[in-house]
Parts: sequence; C-alpha cells; structure tokens
Amino acid sequence: MQLERIRLASLHQKVMSAAEATGFIQDGMTVGMSGFTRAGEAKAVPRALAEKARMQPLKISLMTGASLGNDLDKALTEAGVLARRMPFQVDNTLRKAINNGEVMFIDQHLSETVEQLRNHQLKLPDIAVIEAVAITEQGHIVPTTSVGNSASFAIFAKQVIVEINTSHQSELEGLHDIYIPSYRPTRTPVPLVSVDQRIGGTAIPIDPAKIVGIVFTEQPDSFSTVTDPDAETQAIADHLVQFFRAEVAAERLAPNLAPLQAGIGSIANAVMMGLLNSEFTDLSMYSEVLQDSTFALMDAGKLTFASGSSITLSERCHKQVFGQLCHYKDRLVLRPQEISNHPELVRRLGIIAINTALEFDLYGNVNSTHVGGRNMMNGIGGSGDFARNAHLSIFVTKSTAKAGAISSVVPMVSHVDHTEHDVDILVTEQGLADLRGLAPRERAVQVIQHCVHPDYRAQLQDYFDRALKRGGHTPHLLEEAFSWHLKLEQQGSMKA
Amino acid sequence: MQLERIRLASLHQKVMSAAEATGFIQDGMTVGMSGFTRAGEAKAVPRALAEKARMQPLKISLMTGASLGNDLDKALTEAGVLARRMPFQVDNTLRKAINNGEVMFIDQHLSETVEQLRNHQLKLPDIAVIEAVAITEQGHIVPTTSVGNSASFAIFAKQVIVEINTSHQSELEGLHDIYIPSYRPTRTPVPLVSVDQRIGGTAIPIDPAKIVGIVFTEQPDSFSTVTDPDAETQAIADHLVQFFRAEVAAERLAPNLAPLQAGIGSIANAVMMGLLNSEFTDLSMYSEVLQDSTFALMDAGKLTFASGSSITLSERCHKQVFGQLCHYKDRLVLRPQEISNHPELVRRLGIIAINTALEFDLYGNVNSTHVGGRNMMNGIGGSGDFARNAHLSIFVTKSTAKAGAISSVVPMVSHVDHTEHDVDILVTEQGLADLRGLAPRERAVQVIQHCVHPDYRAQLQDYFDRALKRGGHTPHLLEEAFSWHLKLEQQGSMKA
Repeated sequence: MQLERIRLASLHQKVMSAAEATGFIQDGMTVGMSGFTRAGEAKAVPRALAEKARMQPLKISLMTGASLGNDLDKALTEAGVLARRMPFQVDNTLRKAINNGEVMFIDQHLSETVEQLRNHQLKLPDIAVIEAVAITEQGHIVPTTSVGNSASFAIFAKQVIVEINTSHQSELEGLHDIYIPSYRPTRTPVPLVSVDQRIGGTAIPIDPAKIVGIVFTEQPDSFSTVTDPDAETQAIADHLVQFFRAEVAAERLAPNLAPLQAGIGSIANAVMMGLLNSEFTDLSMYSEVLQDSTFALMDAGKLTFASGSSITLSERCHKQVFGQLCHYKDRLVLRPQEISNHPELVRRLGIIAINTALEFDLYGNVNSTHVGGRNMMNGIGGSGDFARNAHLSIFVTKSTAKAGAISSVVPMVSHVDHTEHDVDILVTEQGLADLRGLAPRERAVQVIQHCVHPDYRAQLQDYFDRALKRGGHTPHLLEEAFSWHLKLEQQGSMKA
Repeated sequence: MQLERIRLASLHQKVMSAAEATGFIQDGMTVGMSGFTRAGEAKAVPRALAEKARMQPLKISLMTGASLGNDLDKALTEAGVLARRMPFQVDNTLRKAINNGEVMFIDQHLSETVEQLRNHQLKLPDIAVIEAVAITEQGHIVPTTSVGNSASFAIFAKQVIVEINTSHQSELEGLHDIYIPSYRPTRTPVPLVSVDQRIGGTAIPIDPAKIVGIVFTEQPDSFSTVTDPDAETQAIADHLVQFFRAEVAAERLAPNLAPLQAGIGSIANAVMMGLLNSEFTDLSMYSEVLQDSTFALMDAGKLTFASGSSITLSERCHKQVFGQLCHYKDRLVLRPQEISNHPELVRRLGIIAINTALEFDLYGNVNSTHVGGRNMMNGIGGSGDFARNAHLSIFVTKSTAKAGAISSVVPMVSHVDHTEHDVDILVTEQGLADLRGLAPRERAVQVIQHCVHPDYRAQLQDYFDRALKRGGHTPHLLEEAFSWHLKLEQQGSMKA
C-alpha cells in the first residue's frame, strides 16, 4: 500500500478491501466504471463483485468507457451480474450473453453516453468505480491509462469508489486533460483548436466527500492482443499510403496529412504501421486509443504528437513506453472520450478517420457491428463519431474472411452502421475505392473494380448487372440482397 | 429594371439578358446555383439555359443549396442539361431521370457540400448563379429568401452571374448572417452560442471583378405546397406535445423546450402547428427551412426567434409575412446551410430535431430517401445533419401510406439513412416509441406497441417472435427481412 498516493490525508480512513467496497453496490444499481479499450479499468472491485454475486445474486446496469481488460466482462457475465451493459464490449462470453438476449446491450457512439447522462436521458450512475494513480490534495482523481467516461461518471455519481493501482507509475499524473462541456443552453464552444492543446485540468474534480471507499490494487492492465501485420494488412497500408500521396500531390492534403484517427485492432494498427515506411513526417494523431503503432511512429520520428483517450499496448511495447514515459510524456495527452471523439472537434480539426469494417456493400454502406445481420460482434465504438464528421472517412477490411468462405464486400450489408452518406474511401488488400462525389451506380463500379476479392468479383458484377436492369438510383434486387449471407448460413460459404 | 439595386455603379455595365448570361456557361462546366427548398433560386438564367440547350446540346454538373422552385429541375432535365446533380431535389421529372440512371445524383448531407468543396474533394464550381435583392457598394451580394450554399459557391467560383429579382423587396437586406468557417488547420470554433446571435455580415463578400453578368428578373418564388394538418398529423403532433410535456415534468427539457428543427414538408409543418395549442411558449427554432408554422407560432406569441437557411411559404402566408416583413425581421435570421445545419452547432445548442421518415423498422433504423430500396425520392437533405448530433432525434411518419397498402413500419428498412445509433424517438399517429437507452429487442417491443398500424401489428409481432427464436442482439430473419417490400411489388400491398 502506498498511502502517499492519497494526498488528501482525511481520505486515508476510507481505505478498505475490494470486498468491503462492494458493499456500496446494491442490486439494481447503475454503476459507472473506468476502462477504455482494455486500459485503466477498475479491477479489484468488479472482480470482488463477481465473487460476491456468486453467493448472493445481484444485477446491475454497467456503463464503462469502452471495453474492459482482465476478463472482467467475462467474470461479471458468468456471475450473472450484468442486467444491462453499455456502450461497448469485446468479450466473448458477454457477446454470447448479449446475442442470447440475456444481457441488454446498448451499442452507442462513444462520444454520446455522457451527453445523454448529462441531459438525464440515461439513468445517472448511482456509484462510480474509477481506477487512479493518485488522489490529489483537493481529493481529485488522477486517472491511469485511460480517461474514457471516468470524469463524467465520477461527477454524476452520488458515491465514488477509487481504486488506486500501484502497478501504474505515479508519473502518469500530468498526462490527462480533463475538460467537461458546460450545460446547455449556455454551453460555449469546446476551445480546442489543435491536437496538442490542453484545455482542462489534470485530475477529475469531484467533492471528496463523495469518495466512500478507496481500494488498493496492483493488478496490471491486460496487454493488447494485436497481431503483427501480414501481407494483406501491408497491402491495405500500401494502398492507403499511395492514396495519401496522390492527395498531397493534388493539394487536398498537406505534406504532413491531417490529424489521424485509427480504430482499435490489428488491421487499423497495421495500417498505421504502414506509415513507418512512407515519406510522411510531422504526423499527428487525434484518436481514441493509442496503440503500438503510435509509439513506433514516434520512435521513428514520424509522429510529433498523439491525443487519445487511452493507451493499450502489447507486452513488448508496454515495457518500452512505460519504462521511459518521460521520453514520450510531452508528446501525449489523454482526454475524456467525449472530447477525443467530439463531432465538433472532428469536424474542426479535419480528421482522417481510419476504421475497420466487418463488411461493406456495392454502394458504400458499412457494417461495423453485426455478423449475419443478427449477432453483435463488439459495437460501433467511436467509428461513427469520427466517420460522420471527418475530413476523410476511410474504412478498411480484408476482402475475405474464414479462408475465403466470407466476402467482406457484399451486395447489401446485413446491418448499416455507417451510411453511404458518411463513407468516402474503402480499402481492401485488393485496392482502394474513392467514392467521393460519386452517385451509387458509379460507386458500385469502383467497389467491384478495386475492392472485392477476385473469387467474388464475377458474382458481384452479376448481381449489379441484373440489379441495373431493374433500375433505380441504388439498383438492388431485394429478393437476393442477402442471398450471400443466407448461402453462408446454409452452405458454409458465400460462393455461388 | 431598378438599377439602384446595384449600388456599385461600375457594375451597371454588366447588366445583360438571361440569354446573354448563358454564354458564360459552357458544356461540361460545374455550376453552383442559389436555391434552397424552392426559395431564392436563380430563375431567369437556368430557364434560359434550358432553352438554349434545346438548340445546342449542353451538359453541366449542377450544385444548389437544396431543391429549386419554378419547375427549374424539370426544365433542365427535359432539356438534357443535367449530367450530375447535387445535393438534393424534389422534382418528379428529375427523380425519374435519376432513377433511370440518366442523371448522376449525389445525395449529400446538406452541411457537407461546401466543406467538401473547400477541401477540393468535389470539383469547384466554374461559375455561380446567385439570386440577389441587391449588390452593395462593395460589390457584395445580398441574397433573397434563402442563403443555402450561395455564399461559398460565389466565393469558390471563378465567375459569378447575379440575378437581381425585383419581386423580392429590398427590405430583405439585413436578414442574412453570412459566416464562412476558416480553413484548416487553423480553423477556430464557430462562435455561435445562441439561436439569435449574428456572427457574420449581411452580404456575400466577393471580389466584384468576378461578377461577369447581372440579370434582372421579377419571377417570384414558388409557393410551398404543404397540405393542411389532418387527423393523422394532428395525432402525431398530439403525441409529441404529450412527450414534450413529460420531458419538461422530468426536467429533461426546460419549459421553453430547446431550439426546434423541423424538416420540410407537410408532416413536419403540421407537427409544428400542433405546438400552437400547447402550453409551451418562448420557443425558438434553429432549423433549415422556415415554413408557415414558424410564422403561425410567432403570430401566436409562442415563438420568439427563428434561425434558418430559407423561407418557403404558402401563398396566403407569403403575403402576410412579406407584406409586413418589418414586423418579423428582428426575430429572423437566414444563414448559410453549412451553419444552419452544422454538427458543431446542433450539438452545442442541443437541438430537438423533427424529421420525416419514409419508413422505419423494428429496431429504429430510418429510411428517408429510397422507395423499395432502389428508387430515390428526394434525398437525405439536412435530416442527418440534425439527427446525428441533436439533443433529441425524432422521426415522424404516418403509419401507413397508399390507403393502407404500405406500412411505414417494417421488419427491416430497405435503405438506411439514419442508423439505430442516431434515432431517439419514433412517432406515428398510433403513438410514440421512446427508444433511448434501450437494447434492440426492447426497442422492437416499443415500436410494435406504439407505432405500427393495427392492420400490421400482428404481422410485425409474428416476424419479431420468429426472429427472436433465432436469436441475436438484433433478431432478424434475413430471408424474410424484405418480404413486405416484395409483397408490395408483387401484390400491391404489404398485407399478409
């Protein structure tokens, strides 16, 4: 225990065990917990809560920033704790429970959850559980490797439990920039005009009297599970670098491009890695999660500043970054996800948004969430926050999945998360389709020519040709629009 | 001719006939014209252009603010002038040409066209044709009954033709507030923090040397064609008033609600009329088109200020408003559509967005544009600009169309313009479904209970029940998802 991390001495008496702290969490409560992309989540209290619920059934509505690490969603699901869950998750056990209708999952744009709370459109958290590196002299909370929704959860909740995690070094303090938009109708502009600007304080300002328990833990964040770039992700990255080069040549982008956002996961991380071998320098990021690629680009002298809401790294990269945090700290800032993903800022800064599609269709509609139109994968996350207002809205995916049995390019997506109105560029390892300023019929030609896998090209062309005969602004054969998905379900492959 | 309307005397020599002015418009050009919701469109030059093209074939790419009046899109389509058209239209002849693939139509969020032009992601207009009430001493253009995209078109175009329309009174000058966002990467916040604030000038600032022709006309705007409220639109309005009342009681809305946006057309107009008999006062609008209902609410002392991008009125209301404009002028402002619809401002001001759906589905996805998944109706217009960032995103529609043969509430929409992530409230004459904070399965129950017409209720419940058995976060039967649409095509009715 490092009591010196609680700098307001009157709070020392609030230190207790995780099991004791769970006493504040009652059946039926709405609970807001820290955690964003498996970084900075409260660890000890939810674990203890799951244990307690095995003895004494208890259900809560759980809100977080985004996904949790340390298999916490698994433990909470298995213990039957989750009645409702929002706004994002990546856990296999929870996913099954969601798709079985056992947990009500609300899949939200990550910038909107706390806005809906602020306006009482969602039930305010009864209690917040927030991981911290320290509590300040004022009783304010210094977050760890993510900010997520922690600040607003702590501000809105009647009671707050703080988990001081000593596996995180104290030097994280100063990394965060906590800005909370003012209430309407007297709200003023979010004053941020550049990626590296600081507009708030370094800790979450709450009345320390709300802190009902402080729990010490030393359980580290989970490491990220991103896989290394492969030939296909490298090809995607190459297409994108070539596109950026052409945009710079046409003077539609500056030589240092524009602030970059990259979705979480292996493909987006690999695409960012692809910039390592490009001519682009003086890059910046205005993103939600900072992954290995962020630091690889910094180490290579390519990236000058990165703004995010969390840091999620592989084991190797974790040691390197947090082993010499002072080396990176003046080029990093972590913000509330409401600010990292804010439509006002995404539009003002002119972000290049790179997100991963599960599938996209002939006309540029993108499915980010649903397998076969029914089953939730993870959630929309921040992809919509960025895609809707970005300077460039780019979606990337491998053209096939499951050894070719699935085409990621289909006649009609089985669920729409990003409409044709919000998608500029589609990229697979096959090539890049630039949909800007094109009518649907023209987009289809680009998608067939550049994105679909050769194994599916004739099949997609055939659908389009026959749909064209029927006519329409967006030619379709409604009776066949999902025939590829149905074929997959019935025969194990989308192939004709 | 009223030469005094050209206050920069050196421009008097630029006065010419519309036919002469068409000489500046060459085959293959991109042309930006004024006009938004059939208000303030250039009239004489496009008419003359259509006539000229009948003799000497000529094709252009035409951008406007939104829809044109005076059957201009019809005339231009029939004359074969339109190769490409964006970002919105409402004309029956043009609609057919779009759906036949003869005109490439780019259906865009109305706030985004000039942003894409500013960043050279769309081809800049070679020439702009802008209706004006006057040209100032500086050679700046004073718009008429709409601003739309006129300011940016005139600024971006190499040449400008001004149509001075003397059917519009000079007193329109002073009504407009022309603010243009600065270029990235040094863009600053749009400084607007209240509906009635003025942040720009009253005329479009261009170099007068760009004005190559000035044409006089006295052709008035078309009158709006909104139909009177009927029992069903009245019921929709009643449900909404009741909902607002509950929101105020729950302190989620102030007694004067929040700035209101209402889509164009009879249903949204009727809904706004429904506020006449409500207890709400001190209302304000931050919308794109100001219709009859705006002025009815002002006359009734209900509405204190209205911000829009255009004024489109019925014949009766037109006489009343423009007959005593001084009576309304200090309570009105017309802005560029980039500002009236700006995501930054919609989010900051916390707009209540009320737009019309063509159809919506069990899970809250909304189709605003496509009939039967293929055929364009009008376009998405500003509905997405507002719905995506509003405090409340509301969609209204009658539960059936074509004497009951069509249900507007379907298992799955045949085209998605607004995703489940962006839709809060659905209203038909049957009732109101509040989807906030609900998982898809919970939303379906609300939609079936409150929105679908009784004639289709059992049929929709049956689909949902059988889909539930198959499971999933968003239960669907992909092989039947469009069966209602197919039944309509094949048998003339969606009824089972």
